[in-house]
Amino acid sequence: MDKHSIVELKPIGVIHSPYKTPEQAPCQGRGLIQISEIEIFTEYVAGLKDIEGFSHLIILYYFHQCKTRSLHFTMPTDITPHGIFTTRLPNRPNPLGLSVVTLVTRQDNILRVKEMDVADNTPILDIKPYIPGIDERRDVKIGWLQLFWPGLRSFQPDQEDI
Amino acid sequence: MDKHSIVELKPIGVIHSPYKTPEQAPCQGRGLIQISEIEIFTEYVAGLKDIEGFSHLIILYYFHQCKTRSLHFTMPTDITPHGIFTTRLPNRPNPLGLSVVTLVTRQDNILRVKEMDVADNTPILDIKPYIPGIDERRDVKIGWLQLFWPGLRSFQPDQEDI
Repeated sequence: MDKHSIVELKPIGVIHSPYKTPEQAPCQGRGLIQISEIEIFTEYVAGLKDIEGFSHLIILYYFHQCKTRSLHFTMPTDITPHGIFTTRLPNRPNPLGLSVVTLVTRQDNILRVKEMDVADNTPILDIKPYIPGIDERRDVKIGWLQLFWPGLRSFQPDQEDI
Repeated sequence: MDKHSIVELKPIGVIHSPYKTPEQAPCQGRGLIQISEIEIFTEYVAGLKDIEGFSHLIILYYFHQCKTRSLHFTMPTDITPHGIFTTRLPNRPNPLGLSVVTLVTRQDNILRVKEMDVADNTPILDIKPYIPGIDERRDVKIGWLQLFWPGLRSFQPDQEDI
């Protein structure tokens, strides 16, 4: 493969969320208690076997309503542009999204989750188990984000954790 | 979009790693000190602006050498199949990979990183900042994986952390 190759993927499911438009969706899902439903298409349901034992999942999805692309982002309150790969914004070259969610219940092909932060009808591309021993890091630096959201640099217990 | 839609993505770069084949690549990268180089194609380099300030990045990539797909996985030492979405294996319906890496240095369009665990020439689809306040979770259950790798349930300091 090279820069001219096309990677073709197919949605494995779709998100049903309380946020009817991208503008209504929260910026991030950490701590959100609203329930979203992830519907997995019938042909992929076998891949969910035993997922009930996992408390947290990484959801990869496609920002299908994002029609713009950019390599930069400038905070509304700032004049300095930053690279799009230092942000979690949707309008990136490949508009892939990533959210860690809490699995509440599963019924057949429906996963009811909390902490999902995207608009209704967003297509799902993959689900992976969230595994602290693989995914977690300490002593993290978050670059320019530190100026605006210093709390993001480390884990912050939310109300349910306290 | 629906189940018949095709999501088309383009590689934004490629990984140069010490692992010449998928078989040589380690199962997971946590704690690996070997250096891999992520080459970002020229047209996307502007998106890296200020990435030097970030210590850890989430790399999304495409397992381009994985030609098989499966909805199940059975451990070699077991007889019970588990759903592919409870694993991090490449042979999933959409062969997307996710690794958290440590950024060592950046030079122009080259990111030198540790903890990358994939084969040489793997195409990169996206880079996101790893943000503990967004991505980290506590009190995690890891389902059937707990039986085989109980240590993965929580953060484990590696030698460099101690």
